[in-house]
Amino acid sequence: MVGIIMGSQSDLPIMEQAAGFLKGLNIPYELTVVSAHRTPERMFDYAKTAQERGLKVIIAGAGGAAHLPGMVASCTTLPVIGVPILSGNSIDGWDSVLSILQMPGGIPVATVALNGALNAGILAAKILGSGDKDIAGKLQHYQDSLKDKVLGTVNDIKAQHPNQYDQ
Amino acid sequence: MVGIIMGSQSDLPIMEQAAGFLKGLNIPYELTVVSAHRTPERMFDYAKTAQERGLKVIIAGAGGAAHLPGMVASCTTLPVIGVPILSGNSIDGWDSVLSILQMPGGIPVATVALNGALNAGILAAKILGSGDKDIAGKLQHYQDSLKDKVLGTVNDIKAQHPNQYDQ
Amino acid sequence: MVGIIMGSQSDLPIMEQAAGFLKGLNIPYELTVVSAHRTPERMFDYAKTAQERGLKVIIAGAGGAAHLPGMVASCTTLPVIGVPILSGNSIDGWDSVLSILQMPGGIPVATVALNGALNAGILAAKILGSGDKDIAGKLQHYQDSLKDKVLGTVNDIKAQHPNQYDQ
Amino acid sequence: MVGIIMGSQSDLPIMEQAAGFLKGLNIPYELTVVSAHRTPERMFDYAKTAQERGLKVIIAGAGGAAHLPGMVASCTTLPVIGVPILSGNSIDGWDSVLSILQMPGGIPVATVALNGALNAGILAAKILGSGDKDIAGKLQHYQDSLKDKVLGTVNDIKAQHPNQYDQ
Amino acid sequence: MVGIIMGSQSDLPIMEQAAGFLKGLNIPYELTVVSAHRTPERMFDYAKTAQERGLKVIIAGAGGAAHLPGMVASCTTLPVIGVPILSGNSIDGWDSVLSILQMPGGIPVATVALNGALNAGILAAKILGSGDKDIAGKLQHYQDSLKDKVLGTVNDIKAQHPNQYDQ
Amino acid sequence: MVGIIMGSQSDLPIMEQAAGFLKGLNIPYELTVVSAHRTPERMFDYAKTAQERGLKVIIAGAGGAAHLPGMVASCTTLPVIGVPILSGNSIDGWDSVLSILQMPGGIPVATVALNGALNAGILAAKILGSGDKDIAGKLQHYQDSLKDKVLGTVNDIKAQHPNQYDQ
Amino acid sequence: MVGIIMGSQSDLPIMEQAAGFLKGLNIPYELTVVSAHRTPERMFDYAKTAQERGLKVIIAGAGGAAHLPGMVASCTTLPVIGVPILSGNSIDGWDSVLSILQMPGGIPVATVALNGALNAGILAAKILGSGDKDIAGKLQHYQDSLKDKVLGTVNDIKAQHPNQYDQ
Amino acid sequence: MVGIIMGSQSDLPIMEQAAGFLKGLNIPYELTVVSAHRTPERMFDYAKTAQERGLKVIIAGAGGAAHLPGMVASCTTLPVIGVPILSGNSIDGWDSVLSILQMPGGIPVATVALNGALNAGILAAKILGSGDKDIAGKLQHYQDSLKDKVLGTVNDIKAQHPNQYDQ
Repeated sequence: MVGIIMGSQSDLPIMEQAAGFLKGLNIPYELTVVSAHRTPERMFDYAKTAQERGLKVIIAGAGGAAHLPGMVASCTTLPVIGVPILSGNSIDGWDSVLSILQMPGGIPVATVALNGALNAGILAAKILGSGDKDIAGKLQHYQDSLKDKVLGTVNDIKAQHPNQYDQ
Repeated sequence: MVGIIMGSQSDLPIMEQAAGFLKGLNIPYELTVVSAHRTPERMFDYAKTAQERGLKVIIAGAGGAAHLPGMVASCTTLPVIGVPILSGNSIDGWDSVLSILQMPGGIPVATVALNGALNAGILAAKILGSGDKDIAGKLQHYQDSLKDKVLGTVNDIKAQHPNQYDQ
Repeated sequence: MVGIIMGSQSDLPIMEQAAGFLKGLNIPYELTVVSAHRTPERMFDYAKTAQERGLKVIIAGAGGAAHLPGMVASCTTLPVIGVPILSGNSIDGWDSVLSILQMPGGIPVATVALNGALNAGILAAKILGSGDKDIAGKLQHYQDSLKDKVLGTVNDIKAQHPNQYDQ
Repeated sequence: MVGIIMGSQSDLPIMEQAAGFLKGLNIPYELTVVSAHRTPERMFDYAKTAQERGLKVIIAGAGGAAHLPGMVASCTTLPVIGVPILSGNSIDGWDSVLSILQMPGGIPVATVALNGALNAGILAAKILGSGDKDIAGKLQHYQDSLKDKVLGTVNDIKAQHPNQYDQ
Repeated sequence: MVGIIMGSQSDLPIMEQAAGFLKGLNIPYELTVVSAHRTPERMFDYAKTAQERGLKVIIAGAGGAAHLPGMVASCTTLPVIGVPILSGNSIDGWDSVLSILQMPGGIPVATVALNGALNAGILAAKILGSGDKDIAGKLQHYQDSLKDKVLGTVNDIKAQHPNQYDQ
Repeated sequence: MVGIIMGSQSDLPIMEQAAGFLKGLNIPYELTVVSAHRTPERMFDYAKTAQERGLKVIIAGAGGAAHLPGMVASCTTLPVIGVPILSGNSIDGWDSVLSILQMPGGIPVATVALNGALNAGILAAKILGSGDKDIAGKLQHYQDSLKDKVLGTVNDIKAQHPNQYDQ
Repeated sequence: MVGIIMGSQSDLPIMEQAAGFLKGLNIPYELTVVSAHRTPERMFDYAKTAQERGLKVIIAGAGGAAHLPGMVASCTTLPVIGVPILSGNSIDGWDSVLSILQMPGGIPVATVALNGALNAGILAAKILGSGDKDIAGKLQHYQDSLKDKVLGTVNDIKAQHPNQYDQ
Repeated sequence: MVGIIMGSQSDLPIMEQAAGFLKGLNIPYELTVVSAHRTPERMFDYAKTAQERGLKVIIAGAGGAAHLPGMVASCTTLPVIGVPILSGNSIDGWDSVLSILQMPGGIPVATVALNGALNAGILAAKILGSGDKDIAGKLQHYQDSLKDKVLGTVNDIKAQHPNQYDQ
């Protein structure tokens, strides 16, 4: 249901965070490398056949002058989530962020934070969950678990620092 | 099906581009002002009741230190699209872009370009269209119309400049 | 008298500098984790009950799209000091700085430097000290100690480098 | 009770927003020009005599390489609020923002947004109000009025756009 | 011999500066609109057939998330010159500059300054001229004319300001 | 005694501020256009003959990729003052500022603020005045006049705003 | 046929990537150090004699306030490729990027990405290849090899992650 | 003849590069710590007595919100050289660069590159040398030595890479 692609194998450690989240929610995904600049035909074909292969959302991550998310978005009506990745000779990530985010009117990319592949996975689930009660329920459960983790750290810190707020 | 909210009435001329696109595709929407900082309870309540009121996607636009999209996302499992808006005393829009885009792991916001409310509308339609053939068809038609407009400009320019590429 | 909150346990090493300063001046504080995005209800409740719990100032630190200080400020009339924190996937701290600093008219946050929790503690003491001669005296003493430290380094360096200025 | 100073007469239209807010709350203020670079002795003397003249808070606004807020803060234990101002040959305001915000450990300046003099005025009131129920009450009233203005715009927009959320 | 393409008709006033320069040197060119995002097939086809149509260099201009130059470069062995263009909702041109300049290893784009279409035209002529004495001669003549214009302004200013340097 | 050069006639309105200041102090200057990129030989020759022509300081202003100040500095032992100028297609002045300021070790340029030609003129006078009591006296007089102007504005504002600080 | 120069020996590890690529394609090159600021005469002479020495393209790399590429371009009609290099005290590479990229109208530099010397080598080959079928063929072969490498990584990843797209 | 001051002992390793250069040219200097924010009186006094103590130039280095150079400049007619220093919690050095460089009209600071203390030392010597043939001669000798070092590296590299340019 979710296609996860990235411009280079070096993006894998980041992009696996999206895959991991979807796996945890039992949402099927496929993950592969599709390079806009080194395999343009593969990219075009991937984007054009995505819907007929059953994908509902595409997550695309890339670094530097990151054209993959935007170019994929130009060849499909599926929602495309873009993940800017901080890579080798990037100028602090600005290149990747801006070349994914600042798409012209007509061709949106749903951009997440720099290296934000986990959030891309969650966003894909939210998109699927907006029409699927089961996924929506799992997301609510996940969001509750975030709260529980925070409350756990509240207790951890209590020993060292006074805390008069016991909510 | 789509909730469009903005932090201030001054954002309306931008945010109406999202509404206009959805209207053109006959996708029902609601549009109102919800300020994270001036009406925090209203924001909270809006986000928490969104799903039960039938919304599938929320589009939230704000300028400056733009907390509305991220805060709404923290209170719902619906996908939230964030629109950074260039407003009065913004530092060239960077404040709005970064405070919407750079959400922490766990709470994604689907960020579009600065003032990119049109793209937010299209993205909302793509999200709905990923599970709805009718909307997907309309989006394909829209994407084709973009192509036609480009080809129209190709002809306009031909008179003034040589063009040996007649595709 | 001073509430110190932070968006995540990972902010603790920075935020403890505020606590340490207040401790040194015998100003009572409470310190805990309150996440705007993962525990929004807790944040709202914390902010709304702060004044009745006897707090006079709130120090709130957060990284990335840092909404905690601004959102807390929107729910209380207490002065809120915001500490931008350089965290994991931040874009050099700009995201945190701008999403805390650039608050819209009506809801100020007293922002200090990136990772400037020590200064947040001092600022909290200055706020309390503006109506409390005892604290003001301690602050004067602290400011004098800064001067003494500088003069100490003046002596350290004298051995290696000529210094004709003996003030 | 509040001293409002600025580096140049050209900052007056911005800085009057701070004065206007305080006036509206019947909080006494004084307002004058004190230039760090053109009248350093005056600045020095102003800062050192501020407390004995009865000031509780100082608001200092300046543009470009804005040294006024930080230098004043170095000569008093009063809380100093810094207002970065976008002036003539500024590089988009970054110079003013960074030279006010990024104070070294020991000497905090409570920085507000670029041109954020209104928020400086509100922050000064919040500081005074943290120990004064009357001012705190007025601030609550002001914060409520912000909410009312938002709700007013909600009604304005309703005529043009559907709004199913009637809170 | 030179293909000039741009992502949108709105880029024409800038891109005509490249055409004008080539015209002045009697270097044949073709100029048309090719949008990476709105006409991806056209872009793909344009790039792949460029060499067989006799082009030696391609100049591609685009604004915002500017993928046209890089994508064209990925589909041809011809040198591609990229012109970042400051357009509507750009963040001061940074988006366009970085998404053209920061190409990954393997697929270079010869980037010129923001709105630097004139320089793109000159660079195309330099590329052709590196193997063509006639064009090289014209370029030398052009470079000499720049010098003459400077010397002309030297004379203009002399009347108002002393100038003891008469070279 | 002071050479004022600029990369283009369009820089003249800014650079005349340096000339005007020197004229006011009766410090002889020469002013002309020397372009690093369009008249490299002229620049080279200008820099190499500067000292023997009696110059003591050179002020060089340029916009965009501003190489003039640094290149002149590389060809003379005279102090060179660089004035970054905000010109046509500059990216907010950053290009000019950084290409003048960030000179490598060995070849300094004394950089002043963006468009800061007035300060360049003053700095040139300060350099000459460090060994000339007459010029130093005039500079002290100028610095006093700045103070007087500030005090004048203090009086102007007094009518509209309370000012309890009468220094 | 290709001259590779750099401002400092410390740039060698980066600039050797350009040499390595040309070597792999049997394109003759020369490589040396030419410093704009420390050896300006050498730089002028190098640029002026480049064409008569048989060079067709010049690649110039430099860090910080990087004047070498632009100054060389001002003294020759050959195409000059500029390589911004991230060096010691650079401000994240911005200084080098902007002082190479933002050349004024009349004197273009073909700028590649930060540390993008490999791309500079490829671009030089593309420039030579635009009039040389043999080189063009080798470039096509290189571009094909990039594709093969991507497809290799596709297989590597398949073992760990599902991939339903088998193109 | 040259005063070298810095805001903090941690700046010493950088600032010693200025001292080292002056020592090498037998130009007398004094070096000490003067903090604008922690020892404002010391700073004022240092600046005001500098000329009568025989100083001709002041070099002032500081990091973060770096007010030392500008404030010293406001209290003396001596030329002041500012050295931005990259320190602990700086935002990539921008804070220090901008708060030193962007001085308002009337009070110039001769700013050098980030961490550019060596260049500050050279610039001080150039200022002194503009009226002193002996120092000017030493500077010429230094500038020649830079050239020799470059030519040395030319030879080093020759063994590994072809170099047909033997100037």
